[in-house]
Order: sequence, then structure tokens, then C-alpha cells
Amino acid sequence: MEERTEIATLGEFGLIDHLTKNNEIQNASSVLGIGDDGAVIDHFGKQTVISTDLLIEGVHFDLMYTPLKHLGYKAVVVNLSDIYAMNAVPTQITMSIGISNRFSVEALSELYEGVYFACEKYGVDLIGGDTTTSPKGLIISVTAIGEVAPDQFVKRSTAQKGDLICVSGDLGGAFLGLTLMEREKKIYLENPAIQPDLENETYVVGRLLKPEARKDIIEFFAANQIIPTSMMDVSDGISSEVLHLCKQSNLGCVIYEEKLPIHEDSRHAAYKFGLDPTVCALNGGEDYELIFTLKQEDHDKIVLNEEISVIGYTTDIESGLKLHTKGGNLFNITAQGWNAFNQ
Amino acid sequence: MEERTEIATLGEFGLIDHLTKNNEIQNASSVLGIGDDGAVIDHFGKQTVISTDLLIEGVHFDLMYTPLKHLGYKAVVVNLSDIYAMNAVPTQITMSIGISNRFSVEALSELYEGVYFACEKYGVDLIGGDTTTSPKGLIISVTAIGEVAPDQFVKRSTAQKGDLICVSGDLGGAFLGLTLMEREKKIYLENPAIQPDLENETYVVGRLLKPEARKDIIEFFAANQIIPTSMMDVSDGISSEVLHLCKQSNLGCVIYEEKLPIHEDSRHAAYKFGLDPTVCALNGGEDYELIFTLKQEDHDKIVLNEEISVIGYTTDIESGLKLHTKGGNLFNITAQGWNAFNQ
Repeated sequence: MEERTEIATLGEFGLIDHLTKNNEIQNASSVLGIGDDGAVIDHFGKQTVISTDLLIEGVHFDLMYTPLKHLGYKAVVVNLSDIYAMNAVPTQITMSIGISNRFSVEALSELYEGVYFACEKYGVDLIGGDTTTSPKGLIISVTAIGEVAPDQFVKRSTAQKGDLICVSGDLGGAFLGLTLMEREKKIYLENPAIQPDLENETYVVGRLLKPEARKDIIEFFAANQIIPTSMMDVSDGISSEVLHLCKQSNLGCVIYEEKLPIHEDSRHAAYKFGLDPTVCALNGGEDYELIFTLKQEDHDKIVLNEEISVIGYTTDIESGLKLHTKGGNLFNITAQGWNAFNQ
Repeated sequence: MEERTEIATLGEFGLIDHLTKNNEIQNASSVLGIGDDGAVIDHFGKQTVISTDLLIEGVHFDLMYTPLKHLGYKAVVVNLSDIYAMNAVPTQITMSIGISNRFSVEALSELYEGVYFACEKYGVDLIGGDTTTSPKGLIISVTAIGEVAPDQFVKRSTAQKGDLICVSGDLGGAFLGLTLMEREKKIYLENPAIQPDLENETYVVGRLLKPEARKDIIEFFAANQIIPTSMMDVSDGISSEVLHLCKQSNLGCVIYEEKLPIHEDSRHAAYKFGLDPTVCALNGGEDYELIFTLKQEDHDKIVLNEEISVIGYTTDIESGLKLHTKGGNLFNITAQGWNAFNQ
């Protein structure tokens, strides 16, 4: 039987000590970490980028099929994705949790194992947070902090007409992973004797449960003197993000269906569920890829990077936002993206 | 009848627009605010201080007697208190909320009215956040960001033997306000016809529902070239904070019962409830005062400030942590402070 230590046996400060005792600081910019009223950062002349997310059990994650270690990892990664989306380098995070007594110390240690794993992989320091009770459900709030050379951050609102619209990696996988897990959960609840059938679905499940932030793309930009004209991360589905980017930049666009990057395994999963892979790619959330615009003359700089796809270009606002289908038709792009308030 | 607009009619982005449309930036250090993946800050050579808190309905606040405007104000102020406790000046906040559909747009506007009121009063900018649904209950996560001249921040761990232990304002008031409100709630639930009796209790109720952060004390330090040898804010009760401060500084202390600052109205409230005012002052939480240590030679600099009380001094660790009572006895100080996990 697994060990179970009640949180109450440690108390708040004992728990914090336990969860943070192996925390190591990697960045010179982390002047003071956990253990005081605040943490202190010195970005030595660079600008500081801040982003924050609130993750709530039953809204953003389902512990029935989300291992706590993966959840800890993902909670960090989705915030780092926002920092990269500013063309900045993440350096620190703070992490607050609200927990009910249904969680043991061992369960929280697992959650933090994932947090530290992400911190190590992305080179960020855990420098603070808050630990408290929650009457029901797990609540995670992460604030990510990054640095960027003065005025080198990239906004959503600065795309120019005629820019190339690019996206990293591939789209729709996380949504298909979610669809799969929700289906398996339903089957399991109806008949707990049936074991989940995740055969050949490693890719889409991984996209859902263990997403990565596109550190490599930001490093590629730096190495190749590329500064996108605008950028954001893809968390609500590419159609929703294209709308944001064009609205804030006061532009229209054309997106080519055939250029949307869709992984082979995502395509198979979509067919299996009777879904259109293009619709999954357009409207599925949680891919944590980057969407960005480039001046046309930068095209040569990215053409050899297989992790970047050019999916369209920006037009003037009067032309609207159009999807150019494989059949040659033009449709208006509307956001079907994930809206937390319509669930 | 009051107007009630459902959140779903605005959607996530409509709601964010609605709540932030009058948001004004006051600080030059706020380079980029709400509306992108991250916010950008430039503290121009100063260091950045970060602190974060998670507030959960039913744990940290009770909406039965907490007006939403006060809650918004308090959610900001308690975070600013942490920044001041580092001897830093708060400059920005991010604020995330998790809300169920039991809240209307009007209710959230009220919450944000309090947030903006605090921002204006303390000169900080709201630069980001996250807005999402919560299956049940209101969740608020605030991250406060401040600035401090390089290496002028004040930690908890740097008090020296023989330092004066000082505290700002007065103690125990918020706990007595809480005791009062909980009593009135109980009476109301048992008999809704009985109106709450808050006569003459304005002070303690105010201490609970609308605390202030001690901006004035930090400004006083700066104006008088005072740098405390250690400092923290009083959120869990002074006995708990004294323990933290001494433990982290590896010291003992003597605290004089007769020096504990207790407001006349708090004293009266304590007697009314049959409580010992000293116990309330020692163990009551949420006062958001500052506790700090000073070199003895700085005594003359603070003696005329009526907002600062010297309550004792630090000793070596072997002498332990002692309360010197009015009767002349010495007792060990133990933390009875608020522990979220024992509730």
C-alpha cells in the first residue's frame, strides 16, 4: 500500500519546507528566493516580463486521468509559453496552491516533482508562492517571470500588412488527446472493468498531458537575428489566436487549410473519432505552439526550420479573416476557441 | 431591483474588456500592461520584488459579511503589505480570478472597483491576470511587484542580537473584527430577523474588512535614513511572526506585554467577548502591520513616530523567546497563529 502522510502532520510551514527543501537556484537574476515576504530579482538592465495563470480542478484539468507529476510540469510549461510568446526568456516562477485534505504529502511531492522537472528543463527558478487550504478541489496559480533585452519584446498588435503568418510545431493534438481521455473516462465510469485503450495514441495523449513550451523557437530567432513583427502563444486554438492577432494589429488575413501543420497521429486520431482534422487544428486548444508574423524578406531565414510552418499572410482589415480551403473556397474565420464561460 | 448581467453574455474577453476599460497606468516602469501574453516592466536599474497570495472563498473570506468592493481592496492591500515588508515600493500587480456563474458582471465590477481604488491609493498599476470559471466559490490570486534600490531590501533573517523589536500601528483589531462578524453571522443564521449589532465596533470591523498596508512606515524609513536590520509583515499574529524572525535570524527575544500596542476599541471589544486583549494582540491574524528590528542607536530616529512601538529586543538563541508579562513573569512565546491546515 502506498504511504500516506496527512498534510496536517506537517502544518503549513512544515509542508513548504518539505516541498522546497531540494529547490535549487540556477539564475544569477534570482537574488532572493523562497522564505521571505517577497522574492527579489535583478535582471541587470534587461526588462522583466510577467505572465500569470490560474488552473482550477474540474475546469482546466481532470485528476482522473492527469497524473500529478504531469500536472505540475504542465502548470509551469503553460506559463513559460506566455513568456516565450513575448520573445523573452523565462527566469523565475512563483507557484501558489490551494489544496484540500484529500491530498497527501506524497501526492503534493509528486506534483512538485513535475514542477521541479520543468524548472530544470527550462532553466527557471521557483522563487515563491503561497500554500493554503481549499475547501474542495485543487487550485494552482503560477506566475512566470522572464527577461528580454530592452524593447525587444514582441507584442500581438504590431503585425504589418503582407507579413507571413507562421506557426510552430503542429496543431490539434492536445484537443484530440482530450477527446480520447474524455471518451475513455466515460467508458471507465460506465464499466470500471474495461481498461483504457490508449494503444497508438501516445502522441495525442502526450500533447495533452505533457505539453512543451517553444524555447527552441525563441533560441532559433535569437541565433538567426529574427524578430517577429508580432507573436502570441496558441492556447485557445489557432482560429481564436489569429482573430486576436489580426484584431489587435488592425489587419485581415488569409490562412491556407493545406498549410495547417497536423501530425500524422493527430490525423489518425481525428478520423477514428469521426472528426475533421482541420477543424481540430483550427479550434482545438492547449497546443502551446507559437503563432507569429514575419516580414516577407525573413522567409529565407526560416525556410529550413522544419518546426516552423508558414500558414498564410496578413491583409488589410477590409478583406476580413479568410480560410482558403483545399477545395479553393474562402470561408470567414470565426473563433470556436475554448471559452471557459460557455462550458 | 438591482441589475444583473450574466457573465456568459460578455464571454471571457468581453468580461476582461469590461473590467479593465478604465484601467490607467501610473508608473513609468509599466512598459506594457494588460492585453498581451505577458506584461513588461522596466525598473531601470532597481531590483524587482515579487510576492503572491491565493485567496479562496470559505477559507480567507466570507462573502456573507464581506462586501465585494472591500474584498477587492483587501486582496490588493495584503499583497502590497508583503512588498513593503521587503522595504520596497510596490509598482504593479497582476490579478487572476476564478468565478462561478453565481456572480454577475455587476458583482465583479464592484470587486474591481475595490481593486482600482487600492491601485490608485497605493500608486500601483494592474498589468495582467487571468479570468476563468470556478466550479464553486470565488478564487483570487494576486501577484504584487515592487522595486527597491539594489541590495536595499530587508530580509527576515538578518536581525542582530540586542536589536530593538518594533511594530507599527496596533495589534489584534482584525481578529476582534472577525470574532464579531462570526458572532453576528451565527446570530443572523439562527434568526434572520435580528439585525447585526455593530454599534461602536467600526474600528475592529474596519481592521478586518479594509486593512491598509504600511506605505507610511516605508516612506518614514526612507525620509529618515533608517534601514531596519530585519522586517516582515504581521499577517498570522505577532507571536508567530516573532518566531519566524528569530528562527531565521538565529536569535532569541524578550517581548514586553505592556508594550504591545492595542487600540482602545480593540481592548473594549475583547472585554465584551470575554477575551484577553494581550492574547488577541499576540495571536490574532490579519493586522498587516510591520514588525521590524532596529539597531539600538536608531532609537532616537523613531521615538517621535507614534505609529511605531518598541515592544522588546533580541537576545541570543539560548535565552529562548520570552514574553515578559505585566506581572513580571517570563513565559515562552509559542505560535498560536493562524494555521490554514488546522482549521
